[in-house]
Amino acid sequence: MAEEALPVLVERLQDLCLERGRSVAAAESCTGGLIASLITDRPGSSVYFVGGVVAYSNAVKQALLGVPPGQMHGAVSAQVARSMAVGVRVRLGADLAVAVTGVAGPGGGSAAKPVGLTYVACADAETTEVRRFVWNGDRAANKAATARAALELLIDWCRRPVSAGTAASGADEGSPSP
Amino acid sequence: MAEEALPVLVERLQDLCLERGRSVAAAESCTGGLIASLITDRPGSSVYFVGGVVAYSNAVKQALLGVPPGQMHGAVSAQVARSMAVGVRVRLGADLAVAVTGVAGPGGGSAAKPVGLTYVACADAETTEVRRFVWNGDRAANKAATARAALELLIDWCRRPVSAGTAASGADEGSPSP
Repeated sequence: MAEEALPVLVERLQDLCLERGRSVAAAESCTGGLIASLITDRPGSSVYFVGGVVAYSNAVKQALLGVPPGQMHGAVSAQVARSMAVGVRVRLGADLAVAVTGVAGPGGGSAAKPVGLTYVACADAETTEVRRFVWNGDRAANKAATARAALELLIDWCRRPVSAGTAASGADEGSPSP
Repeated sequence: MAEEALPVLVERLQDLCLERGRSVAAAESCTGGLIASLITDRPGSSVYFVGGVVAYSNAVKQALLGVPPGQMHGAVSAQVARSMAVGVRVRLGADLAVAVTGVAGPGGGSAAKPVGLTYVACADAETTEVRRFVWNGDRAANKAATARAALELLIDWCRRPVSAGTAASGADEGSPSP
């Protein structure tokens, strides 16, 4: 199946959020604002998108998103992605939040955390979910792939019943959802 | 003179910041993350770009950037742009910050504040400057024009001597710099 263009995913997300009255926030590390920019390319996005934080430095992840200092030795991890999603949702007062952290490249990779390793997390008031990816593109392609994964995760969440408190996959390397 | 491509401006900004050891933060309303995304498209940007806030709702402008509630009746104003720049610089601990607020369109315009009206502010520890524009493009063109104006303002500031405490134009509708 051919991949849908990013604006098509943005349109779907906006339609779902407006239909269901859900607000959205974003916390971005490796995408550097691309997710928020794609969302706000669409007129009417201000009705459901409250805003986001571009947390490029670890200090910003801690100060603006409340990521615990103890997690920052591994800024690209499922735990940090989860903490970023929970933090931005609460601080910006949104129903739903997405967060991404990864190694966009070309620098910054290691054997344990190669270029392309990316975590995408989603949080609402009751539960969280983290998905793990390893992209193999260049910096621009990895940013776009992460933005796509974030939009797809948000769309999946918006399609779930609002009252479902047990919808999380708990894919966070085996640790339970908070 | 032909306009330079946005990635060329980003390259120039990065070279200047690395050369002069300056860090940068951004607070974006009408650009919705585009400035941060353009900056972080370039490898090595994490050395000087600490991050940003996408303040799409007025609540985020107040909660994350410290914009005074009394200013929020006119979220598109020189005062709000200035408060956003000062707020994001302090909260993210950057040497220099840029902020933008405007009416991207197609909706949201009025006789007093037409579609395209945009304020771009810059702040360092000592001074601030605000520039006013009225773009006449569509939503995408207005976002790109605002991002260009923000990058050009940052580049102008980076070229000034670091010790200059009187460099602001004070173009904020006659009010003095804080």
